[in-house]
Amino acid sequence: MPGRHFLHVPGPTNIPDRILSAMHVPMEDHRSPRFPQLTLPLLQDLKKLFRTADGQTFIFPSSGTGAWEAVLTNTLATGDKVLSPRFGQFSHLWIDLARRHGLDVIVQEEEWGTGASPEKIQAALEADKAHAIKAVMVVHNETATGVTSDIAAIRQAIDAADHPALLFVDGVSSIASIDFRMDDWQVDAIITGSQKGLMLPAGLGIAGVSQKALYASKTARANDALRRCYFDFDGMISANKDGYFPYTPPLPLLYGLRTALDMLFEEGLDNVIARHHRLAEGVRQAVAAWGLDLCAKAPNWHSDTVSAVMVPQGFNAADVIRQAYTRYNLALGAGLSQVAGKLFRIGHLGDLNELMCLGAIAGTEMAMRDIGIDVVPGSGTAAASEYYRQDQSTAFRTAAE
Amino acid sequence: MPGRHFLHVPGPTNIPDRILSAMHVPMEDHRSPRFPQLTLPLLQDLKKLFRTADGQTFIFPSSGTGAWEAVLTNTLATGDKVLSPRFGQFSHLWIDLARRHGLDVIVQEEEWGTGASPEKIQAALEADKAHAIKAVMVVHNETATGVTSDIAAIRQAIDAADHPALLFVDGVSSIASIDFRMDDWQVDAIITGSQKGLMLPAGLGIAGVSQKALYASKTARANDALRRCYFDFDGMISANKDGYFPYTPPLPLLYGLRTALDMLFEEGLDNVIARHHRLAEGVRQAVAAWGLDLCAKAPNWHSDTVSAVMVPQGFNAADVIRQAYTRYNLALGAGLSQVAGKLFRIGHLGDLNELMCLGAIAGTEMAMRDIGIDVVPGSGTAAASEYYRQDQSTAFRTAAE
Amino acid sequence: MPGRHFLHVPGPTNIPDRILSAMHVPMEDHRSPRFPQLTLPLLQDLKKLFRTADGQTFIFPSSGTGAWEAVLTNTLATGDKVLSPRFGQFSHLWIDLARRHGLDVIVQEEEWGTGASPEKIQAALEADKAHAIKAVMVVHNETATGVTSDIAAIRQAIDAADHPALLFVDGVSSIASIDFRMDDWQVDAIITGSQKGLMLPAGLGIAGVSQKALYASKTARANDALRRCYFDFDGMISANKDGYFPYTPPLPLLYGLRTALDMLFEEGLDNVIARHHRLAEGVRQAVAAWGLDLCAKAPNWHSDTVSAVMVPQGFNAADVIRQAYTRYNLALGAGLSQVAGKLFRIGHLGDLNELMCLGAIAGTEMAMRDIGIDVVPGSGTAAASEYYRQDQSTAFRTAAE
Amino acid sequence: MPGRHFLHVPGPTNIPDRILSAMHVPMEDHRSPRFPQLTLPLLQDLKKLFRTADGQTFIFPSSGTGAWEAVLTNTLATGDKVLSPRFGQFSHLWIDLARRHGLDVIVQEEEWGTGASPEKIQAALEADKAHAIKAVMVVHNETATGVTSDIAAIRQAIDAADHPALLFVDGVSSIASIDFRMDDWQVDAIITGSQKGLMLPAGLGIAGVSQKALYASKTARANDALRRCYFDFDGMISANKDGYFPYTPPLPLLYGLRTALDMLFEEGLDNVIARHHRLAEGVRQAVAAWGLDLCAKAPNWHSDTVSAVMVPQGFNAADVIRQAYTRYNLALGAGLSQVAGKLFRIGHLGDLNELMCLGAIAGTEMAMRDIGIDVVPGSGTAAASEYYRQDQSTAFRTAAE
Repeated sequence: MPGRHFLHVPGPTNIPDRILSAMHVPMEDHRSPRFPQLTLPLLQDLKKLFRTADGQTFIFPSSGTGAWEAVLTNTLATGDKVLSPRFGQFSHLWIDLARRHGLDVIVQEEEWGTGASPEKIQAALEADKAHAIKAVMVVHNETATGVTSDIAAIRQAIDAADHPALLFVDGVSSIASIDFRMDDWQVDAIITGSQKGLMLPAGLGIAGVSQKALYASKTARANDALRRCYFDFDGMISANKDGYFPYTPPLPLLYGLRTALDMLFEEGLDNVIARHHRLAEGVRQAVAAWGLDLCAKAPNWHSDTVSAVMVPQGFNAADVIRQAYTRYNLALGAGLSQVAGKLFRIGHLGDLNELMCLGAIAGTEMAMRDIGIDVVPGSGTAAASEYYRQDQSTAFRTAAE
Repeated sequence: MPGRHFLHVPGPTNIPDRILSAMHVPMEDHRSPRFPQLTLPLLQDLKKLFRTADGQTFIFPSSGTGAWEAVLTNTLATGDKVLSPRFGQFSHLWIDLARRHGLDVIVQEEEWGTGASPEKIQAALEADKAHAIKAVMVVHNETATGVTSDIAAIRQAIDAADHPALLFVDGVSSIASIDFRMDDWQVDAIITGSQKGLMLPAGLGIAGVSQKALYASKTARANDALRRCYFDFDGMISANKDGYFPYTPPLPLLYGLRTALDMLFEEGLDNVIARHHRLAEGVRQAVAAWGLDLCAKAPNWHSDTVSAVMVPQGFNAADVIRQAYTRYNLALGAGLSQVAGKLFRIGHLGDLNELMCLGAIAGTEMAMRDIGIDVVPGSGTAAASEYYRQDQSTAFRTAAE
Repeated sequence: MPGRHFLHVPGPTNIPDRILSAMHVPMEDHRSPRFPQLTLPLLQDLKKLFRTADGQTFIFPSSGTGAWEAVLTNTLATGDKVLSPRFGQFSHLWIDLARRHGLDVIVQEEEWGTGASPEKIQAALEADKAHAIKAVMVVHNETATGVTSDIAAIRQAIDAADHPALLFVDGVSSIASIDFRMDDWQVDAIITGSQKGLMLPAGLGIAGVSQKALYASKTARANDALRRCYFDFDGMISANKDGYFPYTPPLPLLYGLRTALDMLFEEGLDNVIARHHRLAEGVRQAVAAWGLDLCAKAPNWHSDTVSAVMVPQGFNAADVIRQAYTRYNLALGAGLSQVAGKLFRIGHLGDLNELMCLGAIAGTEMAMRDIGIDVVPGSGTAAASEYYRQDQSTAFRTAAE
Repeated sequence: MPGRHFLHVPGPTNIPDRILSAMHVPMEDHRSPRFPQLTLPLLQDLKKLFRTADGQTFIFPSSGTGAWEAVLTNTLATGDKVLSPRFGQFSHLWIDLARRHGLDVIVQEEEWGTGASPEKIQAALEADKAHAIKAVMVVHNETATGVTSDIAAIRQAIDAADHPALLFVDGVSSIASIDFRMDDWQVDAIITGSQKGLMLPAGLGIAGVSQKALYASKTARANDALRRCYFDFDGMISANKDGYFPYTPPLPLLYGLRTALDMLFEEGLDNVIARHHRLAEGVRQAVAAWGLDLCAKAPNWHSDTVSAVMVPQGFNAADVIRQAYTRYNLALGAGLSQVAGKLFRIGHLGDLNELMCLGAIAGTEMAMRDIGIDVVPGSGTAAASEYYRQDQSTAFRTAAE
């Protein structure tokens, strides 16, 4: 199919050519005296990404799911209680993973299209006088529904309840795209994957873990600690200290991560976040111009990395996705589980700009019209482009610089 | 500047990833026994590209300008008369090159926005009873104005005049994009460059030369032949016969050419040409929806590889181009020479698809509105996308295949 | 440091340019209708690599260690007895991993420089009348000492003992380099990583599992199954069935694996194995010509992928390695654990040929002489090159083909 | 054929991975406001490469032959006398090119294996009282015979004759490898190609031209100047002034040139030259140990970029080359013209190190022995490696830095 593919699933995202070239490298000895010159700065710079001063960072050769598993198995013990709201497929999967490792998960069901409720979390913690709940697990950005939860508010809720539970956050589709502040919000574990805001292929499960959680790790071990070896923190910390890994790491991804972090810091993390907001708002303007609804129930839930768009009654979102893919070389995300067929998702995270988003909006519009959804031709691109033109709120870098 | 650059100058064009990877190769001995396995099929397949059975094909390490020089210096003698219409910057440059090599060029001036006049060519040839005119030089697609001349009609004009002049065609921005038929139209020399429809970097000057022109080459030599060495046909033919070159060729470009030809033949040359027409027509629909004029004076001149768009009185096209480049990461082409400032050019050739063109249209629209040109927001994308949706005239391949 | 690095650690190995280019790809939707066209043949072709007709193949985003963990946690239950010989660092690490997951490992200590003893395994199994031993775990090629164990003989030992224990084999540094036959030897689980014979970066943990082991997996689950989620077989089998993955897979590595398998099958798996033997034998001839000993105590233990060379008394092998690395751009492997300082390792696996090995031999020789080890200049290259010249036992492909 | 190809023809040379990646770039507008940021520093840095303060540098999209043509056609007039020694295939070709452009070449024949004679040049110039000779053309390093001429001595000869002739030097296989000093030696034109010491693919013809030669260019024009257009200096100077080109330049090669110059300057030009000498001397030690002769008649003619090795009577050098290529994946250069079959050439220029050269020496030795040339096994590698070990004369950078 001629021309460039428009990749607008919410991950994996487009890899900039500069990163692709950075990964095109010959192999080398990962135990050489030179290797730590690559790895030690990476582990440091991930702290900047998570905005933490003394959190411990980890890079596992795995997907983001592996990082989830690492956090849970290293910090908790068999039968430990954890509290977790569920409001989409990815919060569901995390809960499932916790249960399969023998944790006792107290689930707070929230309507899909909304997110974690600080009030309910506070209430649950206040009711837990015995402090049996060891951790609160929250998905920052629920990729399935395009909903962002308010982690700062959840921190306040935990504090208000005066509860010692750890706060674990899934930042797979928020890190490097949506504001996240590990230290300010006293997050005890943040995990992400390489294939979203970091603009890399999948293959790295990345985590930031607070000293408090590392201490809990030791406590957990004293009791009936969860079993682990591949994802063991101790082995990793011990090897990482000198810049090495307990097993052979995926070198191209480490070189790619170096360039990805360079690019993010060159643009400026705040600018990256502002750009994501800007691009997302244009997409939302298009959705509004089409007269369609987002899955996210209210603006406070709007995600700046993915928009889940409800199709009108009588249409199957899968038809929009298939038409976009086969006819216009545009990849959109599908509705999962209880929203399958009801929505399609436009990913707008990673290495994107206005014209890429406008191409995706145009393609979505054409695919919808092709299957009979009656949106006005050009309405989406008009609304988004006028927003992009007029918005002066965010800094952006220019080619002429 | 984050995200992908939208490259819509009329060359160089976007290089598909598959071609970039094909050029990422270690060096090898260009005199090895294996090397001809690469080169001999290339020279053959260029015949398919030019649609010639027995023309001789050439690959010079040069730009397209070098191929121009090769054709003239090998086939003509000092002081020879050649006839050439001039209707844009590139027909002008070819005439200049011919003069600098000592040829006597009879120039037919045509209004910019129109192209070669078969009638005037026929008249000039009929008037040349002595057959002093040795060649007619025509630019197939004038990249400066977005005008395509009718080479078949020019052939008919030459035949009607019963004149033995050779027919030389500049196909730099037409080959692999606009229908061209060397044998059917009895073209004696066609030249092109690698950086347009062939989707490669610049660096190869490619020519197809008829046996008649090669014979003229020998005649010219007997008289006061033009001097040449680097661009000499004989040395090249002699080395190429066995698959070698008289000097070190640019290997990555040869590997890239292999893949480019593979891709063109896989899509089908007719499909490639139909796709270019389709994408071009969408751009023209957008220009019409904006209420603007093309430089091309009438539909028969419309180029399927580049559209030159006139800005309204009182505006400077350079401002549109600068705004598109610095604010939207979109490269448009400038007006050259007598149309400088009066038009901008949207290149739509090479490895492109609908959404890429719609992104470019949206960006052009935004840039125009930013500098005060009052086009209706979304009007261009609406017109183009509806055309793209409804047009069923051309085959196109789908991702699902 | 100018020129090409000579990478002769026993993994990661040199990546052929063709594979590097195959991995240089834009991202795509891993849930697209097209994606299974990549993945389903991969899973099939891994069976050919393992030489199994009905084994189940797995590709985990992990290192080879992850594949170890997957096999153990999916097939065994807490407290299960497993039998494992230990004769080097990697057999040691696998035993450690098993213990950390709650298995009861019966360790058979073997002298480093020798390998698994079929006789002792048979004896242990015969003594286990109750069939408490659920699995025998053997490292096929112990990378730390350059020792290859005889898996066929171990199968015979198990059969001779008439014991139902599963046979688990670590093929990290043998697969695609040393003969391995899953079905012929009734191996129940074979694991490998991508960064050795497969000529890829690290990042894929690959396993082949027999139907018997999968059935055991179900039995284990009924009891006190080991916990897992990331490495769960069921989730992987269920998603793989249609060509998908339970989480985002590392796309470049999958594309690279496609090309790696193509290259292995084009050369012919038997030819690949013969080439490894041939190159290894040349290295061993060099070692003999130097008058040095291998760590491997006898020819039956000789590894065709790595040679561990003992330095003479009074020398530290680390000095050879440092000199080779800093002065000659040659990476050799270090001695680990109880052989640290006593040996260096020359990796000779993956994408290698005679001249690459001769360069490494020359560099090793120079490094040894630089630090005072009195080997005869040119003796190693002379011995190896004469062997390479005269050996006609193995087919090899030529550039002229 | 598995493993890395050993490319030891005297060009094209091995391209470092860093340069290959630098050339793997998307296309861009070569008339953008940003483009001069790439090109202007390139033109400046080429001055450093040629060691000239005020020479004018040129980059033509062509092979080195094109740069030859550019220098001659821009500075001389039809019928001008030039003086040129001939002592190999490349000095022959340059003379041929000059003649084909209408120059009157006075040829000084020198025995192949020797080079330009300053004494004879001085004598010829002294005899030319009328100063009819406009230029002296010398090949710095004759690639066909492995002979380096002494350009400084030729400058002294011209000065001693008190003759105003321009001094034109072919540095195709010397620049960036063998000491060259444009200003110190008052060279009026130096030309090179991208595919040798610059470690790039072929495709750039590069020249440095003195102000004196540029002035001569104007004089020549006043008379019966040679004709040119593609290779015209004026058009290039005019466009280059602002960082642009008169036609589309080959962007990947320009990006590659940026990286090549960076690498040369990082290593240090003097270190690069010392490294070439060091590697060449090792090869010569091997040739001596084999008991064979170089084509170069005496040490003062020894080339540090290529060694032409005479095979003993009764052997055909083509057999050595074929055997090396088909059996050992090693590319050697052939004898050309009058030395065809009598010698093979080992290229040792560009991105090379000791172990690469030792691999090539070992391969050459094996190929010779295979066809019956009785050299002692290991003698070449022993001699070269002992030289490399013991030589402390040149700085070299280490991996540990």
